[in-house]
Amino acid sequence: MKFEDFKIISTASSVPDRVVDNDELSTMMDTSDEWITQRTGIKQRHVAVDETTSSLATKVAEELLEKSGLKPTDIDLIVVATMSPDYLTPSVGAIVQGNIGATNAIGFDIDAACSGFVYALKVARQMLMADHNMHAIVIGAETLSKLVDWHDRSTAVLFGDGAAGMLISNEQEPGTFISEDLTTLGNLGKYLTAGQVGVKSPFAADDTQYSPFFKMNGHRVYGFAVKNVPASINRALAKAKMSVDDIDHFVLHQANERIIEKIAETLGAPMTKFPLNINEYGNTSAASEPILFAELVEKQIIKRGDVVALSGFGGGLTVGTMIIKY
Amino acid sequence: MKFEDFKIISTASSVPDRVVDNDELSTMMDTSDEWITQRTGIKQRHVAVDETTSSLATKVAEELLEKSGLKPTDIDLIVVATMSPDYLTPSVGAIVQGNIGATNAIGFDIDAACSGFVYALKVARQMLMADHNMHAIVIGAETLSKLVDWHDRSTAVLFGDGAAGMLISNEQEPGTFISEDLTTLGNLGKYLTAGQVGVKSPFAADDTQYSPFFKMNGHRVYGFAVKNVPASINRALAKAKMSVDDIDHFVLHQANERIIEKIAETLGAPMTKFPLNINEYGNTSAASEPILFAELVEKQIIKRGDVVALSGFGGGLTVGTMIIKY
Repeated sequence: MKFEDFKIISTASSVPDRVVDNDELSTMMDTSDEWITQRTGIKQRHVAVDETTSSLATKVAEELLEKSGLKPTDIDLIVVATMSPDYLTPSVGAIVQGNIGATNAIGFDIDAACSGFVYALKVARQMLMADHNMHAIVIGAETLSKLVDWHDRSTAVLFGDGAAGMLISNEQEPGTFISEDLTTLGNLGKYLTAGQVGVKSPFAADDTQYSPFFKMNGHRVYGFAVKNVPASINRALAKAKMSVDDIDHFVLHQANERIIEKIAETLGAPMTKFPLNINEYGNTSAASEPILFAELVEKQIIKRGDVVALSGFGGGLTVGTMIIKY
Repeated sequence: MKFEDFKIISTASSVPDRVVDNDELSTMMDTSDEWITQRTGIKQRHVAVDETTSSLATKVAEELLEKSGLKPTDIDLIVVATMSPDYLTPSVGAIVQGNIGATNAIGFDIDAACSGFVYALKVARQMLMADHNMHAIVIGAETLSKLVDWHDRSTAVLFGDGAAGMLISNEQEPGTFISEDLTTLGNLGKYLTAGQVGVKSPFAADDTQYSPFFKMNGHRVYGFAVKNVPASINRALAKAKMSVDDIDHFVLHQANERIIEKIAETLGAPMTKFPLNINEYGNTSAASEPILFAELVEKQIIKRGDVVALSGFGGGLTVGTMIIKY
């Protein structure tokens, strides 16, 4: 077992105030609280009114700094995992960098959809490895409400908005990273798409409009997740020479409570080790694991020394697991 | 002087066949070849007809593999720098991973706009540092034609489509990386925006539509570039304990010939060290430095052992320089 590399200095999250519960959704489309809850575990979601991905991410960055006691100029790197940026340029990372005055930091975005937070954490960790005394802010931030067809009951009920992150450093007592397993299955990418920016110009053969909405083959994505997430977690465990018993908390992407139950069953681990908050937030893509992680730290359910398996999965298709000691 | 880390195994590029020259543009808007050439150095640009960012990037990846003699399964990492992806999910990196069958690789996108290639090369390099015998494909790929308002003569004349990249490895004779300087000025981000994905839902206060088009304050972006690019190159040179005389080729982002002339003047280096191909391709954002690099390698103008300063700048605002020994 190897503990190395970085330390999580602080965690924070920010979600829009506006809550849309299943009953409110039922007034907009042919669905019901019972239908949604049974199939997904979702009771409500937070939805942006005047918040943007960058405004949520900025709040997270500000809170991370405040909790850490660090100055904006102490930060070297801001990586934002998002599939719902404000713009294609500037990146959310650059906007956050400007907003908080982190003038010594570079900022950019990573797109690996619902696995984005683990991918971003991997990138940030490896960028920290290049130098000592470095500080990075890693954020997952989404306003998926702008990619949802609010007339399509098969997808509209699933998603929510929010942001959360970690301030990590290799300055003091690194010892967080244990092992990781990241996988991409690009051949299955067509089963979950959103935000199609079609080629549109006077010269294009097929003048495709921008088509924002999620299109999902739920059956195939379910099959992908229940097979590949346990496999990824098992590979990460094998690299760490650990077993599921060594993991205190499985902080999984909150896509669907039924998927998480199936993953727990396949891994042979009790559901008590799989904290859930999908009931409150829905699926917030790259933001979901850090929102849950920050909440569990806040509630002192995740304590210093606990071993946590972070695992994200979704668009790409992608899956990413990192085992850490908090 | 320190030579370390990775080797560029192969380079490749791919652009759409369709060429739109200044005269053709003059039939669409109130402009002229003389006006465009004088202000930008651009004579023509390649524009997607049925190509997409991922189809261009896939061609680049296939050619990189072919030239290297490696198998798709030898690749560990595919990083695509783009601000014009096919979708918000899946990422172009995941699509390319699936298309070429690089089943052992993870794929994702990085958004740092016109500095994207240098940012992606930094990320890939640092991910290679974690393990030996790793191979990464780093691509800059854009179809900016879909983000251009073809009725706005102030921006439509500037941009083009294309993709290019490098296959890098730390397996054999690493010795490419010399130094780098990356900077983000997020506080200036508003001077260059594109692809605004506004918050749009039944719950949003301001139901903003998707607004694809480039919006640029040319005066401010010019001022940013001619000040910050020489400063970035000088910082990278200082880290390397090198002077401009030690650089054989300055492979700069091809945004505007006038900007590059001003940068050369500020650095006190002759324009003969600043190869240009903007006349043929226009500004292809993250693709521009690797397109130029691949072309110069193909023409044997960049030879093994040459010292090259790669420097990108643009949306974010961002700037990124990497000095390498080819």
